[in-house]
Amino acid sequence: MEKAERKNLINIIPLGGVGEIGKNMTVIDSGGDIIVIDAGLAFPEADMFGVDIVIPDMSYLFENRERVRALLITHGHEDHTGAIPYLLREMSVPIHGTALALGLIREKLKEHNLELPKRSSPYKPGDVLNIGCFRVEPFRVNHSIADSVGLLIDTPAGRVIHSGDFKFDHTPVDGEVADFRRLAIAGEEGVQVLLADSTNADRPGYTPSEKTVGVKLEEIIASAPGRVMVATFASNVHRIQQVVSAALKWERRLAVLGRSIENTVKVACELGYLDIPDNIIVPIDEVRRFPPEKLVILTTGTQGEPLSALSRMSTGDHRWVEIIPGDTVVIAATPVPGNESMVYRTIDNLTRMGARVIHGRESGVHVSGHGAQEEIKLMLNLVKPRYLIPVHGEFRHLKMHAYLAESIGIPPENVLVGENGTVFEVTREGACVAGKTTAGSVMVDGLGVGDVGNVVLRDRRQLAQDGILIAVAAIDKQTGATLSGPDIVSRGFVYMRESEQLIEEARARVVEALARCQARQQTEWPVVKNAVREALAQFLWEKTRRRPMVMPIILEVNPGQ
Amino acid sequence: MEKAERKNLINIIPLGGVGEIGKNMTVIDSGGDIIVIDAGLAFPEADMFGVDIVIPDMSYLFENRERVRALLITHGHEDHTGAIPYLLREMSVPIHGTALALGLIREKLKEHNLELPKRSSPYKPGDVLNIGCFRVEPFRVNHSIADSVGLLIDTPAGRVIHSGDFKFDHTPVDGEVADFRRLAIAGEEGVQVLLADSTNADRPGYTPSEKTVGVKLEEIIASAPGRVMVATFASNVHRIQQVVSAALKWERRLAVLGRSIENTVKVACELGYLDIPDNIIVPIDEVRRFPPEKLVILTTGTQGEPLSALSRMSTGDHRWVEIIPGDTVVIAATPVPGNESMVYRTIDNLTRMGARVIHGRESGVHVSGHGAQEEIKLMLNLVKPRYLIPVHGEFRHLKMHAYLAESIGIPPENVLVGENGTVFEVTREGACVAGKTTAGSVMVDGLGVGDVGNVVLRDRRQLAQDGILIAVAAIDKQTGATLSGPDIVSRGFVYMRESEQLIEEARARVVEALARCQARQQTEWPVVKNAVREALAQFLWEKTRRRPMVMPIILEVNPGQ
Repeated sequence: MEKAERKNLINIIPLGGVGEIGKNMTVIDSGGDIIVIDAGLAFPEADMFGVDIVIPDMSYLFENRERVRALLITHGHEDHTGAIPYLLREMSVPIHGTALALGLIREKLKEHNLELPKRSSPYKPGDVLNIGCFRVEPFRVNHSIADSVGLLIDTPAGRVIHSGDFKFDHTPVDGEVADFRRLAIAGEEGVQVLLADSTNADRPGYTPSEKTVGVKLEEIIASAPGRVMVATFASNVHRIQQVVSAALKWERRLAVLGRSIENTVKVACELGYLDIPDNIIVPIDEVRRFPPEKLVILTTGTQGEPLSALSRMSTGDHRWVEIIPGDTVVIAATPVPGNESMVYRTIDNLTRMGARVIHGRESGVHVSGHGAQEEIKLMLNLVKPRYLIPVHGEFRHLKMHAYLAESIGIPPENVLVGENGTVFEVTREGACVAGKTTAGSVMVDGLGVGDVGNVVLRDRRQLAQDGILIAVAAIDKQTGATLSGPDIVSRGFVYMRESEQLIEEARARVVEALARCQARQQTEWPVVKNAVREALAQFLWEKTRRRPMVMPIILEVNPGQ
Repeated sequence: MEKAERKNLINIIPLGGVGEIGKNMTVIDSGGDIIVIDAGLAFPEADMFGVDIVIPDMSYLFENRERVRALLITHGHEDHTGAIPYLLREMSVPIHGTALALGLIREKLKEHNLELPKRSSPYKPGDVLNIGCFRVEPFRVNHSIADSVGLLIDTPAGRVIHSGDFKFDHTPVDGEVADFRRLAIAGEEGVQVLLADSTNADRPGYTPSEKTVGVKLEEIIASAPGRVMVATFASNVHRIQQVVSAALKWERRLAVLGRSIENTVKVACELGYLDIPDNIIVPIDEVRRFPPEKLVILTTGTQGEPLSALSRMSTGDHRWVEIIPGDTVVIAATPVPGNESMVYRTIDNLTRMGARVIHGRESGVHVSGHGAQEEIKLMLNLVKPRYLIPVHGEFRHLKMHAYLAESIGIPPENVLVGENGTVFEVTREGACVAGKTTAGSVMVDGLGVGDVGNVVLRDRRQLAQDGILIAVAAIDKQTGATLSGPDIVSRGFVYMRESEQLIEEARARVVEALARCQARQQTEWPVVKNAVREALAQFLWEKTRRRPMVMPIILEVNPGQ
């Protein structure tokens, strides 16, 4: 990658979140200064066995660390903040974000025994930060977490706007409407490049206001015959506030259940984002003392996560709360693609235990945090960017965003659809795709960051599919005679105890293969192992139509020892 | 299970399809005679690694084989017919079904080197079959495959109706409207038990007519600038007919792509269910000779199946068809829960190659084959059963079906929600849950039927999650001294080449553990292996926070040999 050294030239490089959902990260590089917008994680895809989270490949930052001036956070969701611990392990950089975002980041860093770097500081809409050659001004947007912003950035190549994750909510719970006016004025003054959220680009119309969820929740809580459990994303402070308000109104007490939501509530209360009267809260271990119709329980687990409180309740495994007939469970979220089966399993189990479960698109208990097509068009018409770079979405969303831009009159050649690592070169004269830099996914599994790669995943997939069969023998180093074995051991292939004959036949194939090699005087271990592997694989395929991983292990013994 | 030997008593036993989607199978046992309705398969759940299909545990039939008089098929879908080959391997039983269903079954049996059993025969709506003490009369229903029926069965305990999979389509493609009148007359005469489809019990309103899809497909084909690929379920003969009609109308040729859909088209044409003029068909290898705007390609792969034609096209791996800009791809199905990620990946890839992809609930290119709430109520009001047994659905669907029944006036105590294996006892006086018999899931993996059980699956899950680490050593049988090794081999755990130090340390732990055992004179292999396993597991957890399967293998060598 050639560096942006020409004057009035910047490179905009998405390192994550383009062509995918999650791990959002964008770099703006003036040649002298680098600022980074967001550093998020993604959850692993279904075939990334054993992987806990996925973070962006941040090599570009590590290689240019001396020029990285700041990390700017648009909001406190993990897909915008979750890679921060892994960034900070390698380098220090001041972090700026709204107070809630920084509060949540600070909590997360504690778990990693890390602290917010020096010179980190909160910002609020309207603040101006001069960072190197950049002038940064956050502006209010609405989203499914409180205190979300987009960023207006004046650069040597002109003005760049990053929308962050956004919707336009005319009746937000906290009254803070997305700043139409700032966007309109900015558009009037001229915007060279808009990077904008594409998540809901394939949804027609408008996303409803968060307040519509509040109305629905209040109805449910008003009429429920017993307890009401509301499961929501832990970070959705406004929705939590609406649950609190409904509980207050209908004179129910509130218990908060689950570590992540307890954390958010604590941070959000401390920072003034949540207003929960002390006397409404019931510690979870005292829930049994209150009549069911006097209780609301706030919890997580909307994605059917096996360890969540909701999932445990659904199987009767929760320490404090047992589902009883008369309970109403509200799942105030839609399943993230890939989680549907787990979510439906949880709903089934809850129903079986006697709960009424309210969920699904038509129930009115969830709205998206991302603007639909009309809101995306509104953003485009307010900002009137010369160039659009669609971000935050899978390829079909980016492409649909491009269609929307075309529909409101942005010339197709001014819509730059790229991928992670695409280097967009921007000057006052124009913008184009200039190249490609290192980008991709780094998988985190336990303590390992990046040590699980394609080889390990390929093995895990094969092991998952058909298991493993190991053939082991000890061989005389001098004579090549078999001193012990061959023994056959398998796991995840067939039930060994009921497959003695198969295993015995497999053993016979190994003996034959070894004998064949000895007869042909093939004594090099790779050759022998290969012969054993092939003989076994073919035999097992014929007998079972399965392809377990076949692993010959040969131990050389020097009997003279 | 006590047998139903009292006079005028029957047992109704669902062996599959209750509390789950798929593998539908219901037994009706008079004590003297047994008839079976459907014998379907289910697709494995996400955590059933390596399993190809799941079939019902049919022990009840195998144990009472001399009394099983007939298998009655409601329609030709695999979730109603896919277990037939596995049933016929164990026992022979005459199969009756509509001509299309039997035609498709015959094709499937060929793949298993099986034939339709003797005395099998087709039936059509209005036919009457006297089977043992049962009088069976199929009646027309609408569904997403042609020639679907429900069954009206007169038994010693009164009349039983099984709805099959149904919707009420007032404008079906073949003009064969579900037989409202037969149901109304049966209701008037009195129905003791209704077993009815619950699949869409949680969807409000009515399911639209299949013809609405035809209108939409015609619009798309009329206006598409280039080729149109329509992906649909292979068995949806009416939808295929509508694609054919639209192609004819807009003077496009038709290519059929994919083994399963070619099979269906062949069978359905032979039996007169499909009307495709010869001159419209283009062999797939001649597709390139026609201008894109003169072509429609009919294919499968609506679920993102990796080996389907659509999936191969999306990655540029198809032998005959390459996606080009201007192509329109219609995915005329919704993803089955669990398949969403694969479907979206396919859509993304197709979009990336330049295709316009039409999909999703709002696009109008798919309607369900199952009736929604108003249709379920219509069925209940027509039949007016004394007792309802909701079938075909996960627990929440059965429960919702029960609510619907209550809403139209069936007393809650007359709605019998059970599970697979529940024995419903029915007499002329009433019906109740009388017990439970063997039922469950049998997993098919390759050639193995039922040999993959919980032990094997548990191992596969662990292997998938963190891989395997094998420690192997050869030990002197007499002295207990280590003659070779310990060696460490791992797969799917860490990338071995980059983890030499970790592996070396692990080896050291094995040496220590072996030495400790020798020092304590613990020479029994289970004890030694356990010591090695525990030392390794603890070490690996500390170092990596992963729990690979740890497998110590010790070979005894007699150096005197």
